Amino acid sequence: MSLNTQNYKGTRDFYPEEMRLSKWMFGKWREVLESFGYEEYDGPVLESFDLYAAKTSEEIVQEQSFNFEDRGGRRVVMRPEMTPTVSRMVAKKRQELGYPLRMYSIPNCFRYERQQRGRLREFWQLNADIFGVDTVVAEIELLLVVNKLMESFGAPDSAYQIRVNSRVLLNEAIIDSQPQVELASVLRLIDNYDKLSSDEFDAKLATLVDKPEVLKKYLTGESLPEQAQAVIDKIVTAGVQNVVYSPTIARGFDYYTDIVFEVFDTNPENNRAMFGGGRYDGLVGEFGVAPVPTVGFGMGDVTFENFLRSNDLIPVLPSETDIYIVTIGDIAVQAQQVAGRLRDYSLNVTVDLSGKKIDKQIKTAEKKGVNNVLFVGESELESGQFKLKNIQTGEEQTVTLDQIPELPL
Amino acid sequence: MSLNTQNYKGTRDFYPEEMRLSKWMFGKWREVLESFGYEEYDGPVLESFDLYAAKTSEEIVQEQSFNFEDRGGRRVVMRPEMTPTVSRMVAKKRQELGYPLRMYSIPNCFRYERQQRGRLREFWQLNADIFGVDTVVAEIELLLVVNKLMESFGAPDSAYQIRVNSRVLLNEAIIDSQPQVELASVLRLIDNYDKLSSDEFDAKLATLVDKPEVLKKYLTGESLPEQAQAVIDKIVTAGVQNVVYSPTIARGFDYYTDIVFEVFDTNPENNRAMFGGGRYDGLVGEFGVAPVPTVGFGMGDVTFENFLRSNDLIPVLPSETDIYIVTIGDIAVQAQQVAGRLRDYSLNVTVDLSGKKIDKQIKTAEKKGVNNVLFVGESELESGQFKLKNIQTGEEQTVTLDQIPELPL
Repeated sequence: MSLNTQNYKGTRDFYPEEMRLSKWMFGKWREVLESFGYEEYDGPVLESFDLYAAKTSEEIVQEQSFNFEDRGGRRVVMRPEMTPTVSRMVAKKRQELGYPLRMYSIPNCFRYERQQRGRLREFWQLNADIFGVDTVVAEIELLLVVNKLMESFGAPDSAYQIRVNSRVLLNEAIIDSQPQVELASVLRLIDNYDKLSSDEFDAKLATLVDKPEVLKKYLTGESLPEQAQAVIDKIVTAGVQNVVYSPTIARGFDYYTDIVFEVFDTNPENNRAMFGGGRYDGLVGEFGVAPVPTVGFGMGDVTFENFLRSNDLIPVLPSETDIYIVTIGDIAVQAQQVAGRLRDYSLNVTVDLSGKKIDKQIKTAEKKGVNNVLFVGESELESGQFKLKNIQTGEEQTVTLDQIPELPL
Repeated sequence: MSLNTQNYKGTRDFYPEEMRLSKWMFGKWREVLESFGYEEYDGPVLESFDLYAAKTSEEIVQEQSFNFEDRGGRRVVMRPEMTPTVSRMVAKKRQELGYPLRMYSIPNCFRYERQQRGRLREFWQLNADIFGVDTVVAEIELLLVVNKLMESFGAPDSAYQIRVNSRVLLNEAIIDSQPQVELASVLRLIDNYDKLSSDEFDAKLATLVDKPEVLKKYLTGESLPEQAQAVIDKIVTAGVQNVVYSPTIARGFDYYTDIVFEVFDTNPENNRAMFGGGRYDGLVGEFGVAPVPTVGFGMGDVTFENFLRSNDLIPVLPSETDIYIVTIGDIAVQAQQVAGRLRDYSLNVTVDLSGKKIDKQIKTAEKKGVNNVLFVGESELESGQFKLKNIQTGEEQTVTLDQIPELPL
């Protein structure tokens, strides 16, 4: 019986064409993060189950993670998110690292999800965190990073909006509406505020708190506390673009302690949170070391690619190969030597090697998106004169190998 | 109870310092492969168990892989190697892809191993494959890639040797020593030839075949077939460096069909195979499509890093950050604006933000390996004149922001 060519459900095969897109996107992420002094790190795909049991949202760990017992009887998890890993790493070298500490990573993460738009079982996620700053200047920096990320992809200001809330103020409003409330369940409901109708939301809220009208005043912005205005004023004054205070932003994770934010796609057909983050001052301290104030955010590759695509922000991404050598006759070895000389000039050069007819070799070059074809046969090798053709424009010229690096390819 | 900071056994945490090394090493791998026209791809970490059951060595799949049942009752594996994935991908788009097809990837792979030097449970592996070429010019190209890889890291010719064998000729010699032999078990024994004493090897071989002396003649090179000499002559004539025919090279995987090779560290204290590959013409055809001749190799990050380290080939890798801004007084927001102007010149700029004393901020810059410190306070902002200090050399100068991009940092 034949093997199945299908990839496992919810995962993706990245052929060179798809991979070009990822490399381009991740390359820009790296460029922006490094311009702010963030340094790249990485951690293991497999982590101990206990690492998530504490603080990641219970739904994600219990129902949406790939976890299993290893042969030594340890329960391990394929990381569903990166924040617990980076917190563990910082705690482990708490004393050695210099603060403020800026770290970023682009890990693949794993969730056991039913398939739907923007949700896969394996996805990549930019994670950026700043450790060791307990004032809002840390949040401001990360929001400037968000602005710069969007700008670097050419996203117009009108395409997105940053919505900021404070878990401290939100929690106060919740407690005002009922002192003995179970916070997590109300936060979870508020996290779905945008997905529910007003009536649905009110009905559910009434089952959770005694005085829903008190909380609603906060959520609708009718009675924003002074501190909320002060925070947003600081952020705007510092030069952050496209930012508003938004009392209904909650975020799904349990570990946030104060400012939280989400970045929304403003397209009316796709008006939803694309990514977000916030302050989580308590997580590093969970590892038995002195706490480290932290602000971070994460953005997934699938959602962001959708945003770029719907805003028409993905350019044509050319092949990395500069020259495709078409071989005339049985001269693969000599053609490889010609290629070797061009590679010494830092050119990327492919030799066909198939022994197919010339027009078929040219077709292959086209298929691979390589623009320049160099013809190599016995007579070219003897004369040292080679025909170079741009198969996009049809332009041809006869050149020596040493002339090629000077040409605009 | 506190959470544990320990990473899962056999995995690594890559702090920015370790990550710099990986980025440097993988960057060079990419550069060399792309110079030969190889295009990067990627596939899922999770694959169906069946994919490996067919052709990967039984030991690896059954005993050394992380596999588990998902909630839908499917047995999945965290990829122990990349070859089955890339074969599946090529089979899936068999008709659409242009041949020769050159692909490379640097996936993380997973094996459930006891820890020992160079063996981890999560490691990265460069995989390079060429599809669609059925003559030895494909092997030659990949061996030239190996030469170029070694050269690009500054490895002297004397530091390594490429050993080539033919599974076809080896299989013939085995069958000559016993027609009804079980090939796989003899191949597995030969794969351990270098690890066993001569007596141990002979004793084990005698239990597997009737006429061990016939096979031994091949293995010791006493009676090399003419084709062996012809193959190695072609390879040497094509310009491959440091290559010899070596009749005891077998390779652990079952899918190889002809030429196999291994690259050895020639250091007498560490004389062993670092990486290898070969021809596997049958694997794509296992997916029910017309077969595609294929040659490939894989090299792991841990073994290669050990090689670089023992040959003293790892340079000092500098920080990506160009300038570290030390803030004087409560001016984080303004310092961030100064940084923003410098970032517009494509400089990577960190702002301290800690509010610590000046000498402590300079210590942090040192710790992070950033050489240039820029001092920003009220008076500097007013005058537009900033002190820039190289903390390696102690050199200081007073500059305007627009002068900084012109300086050698």
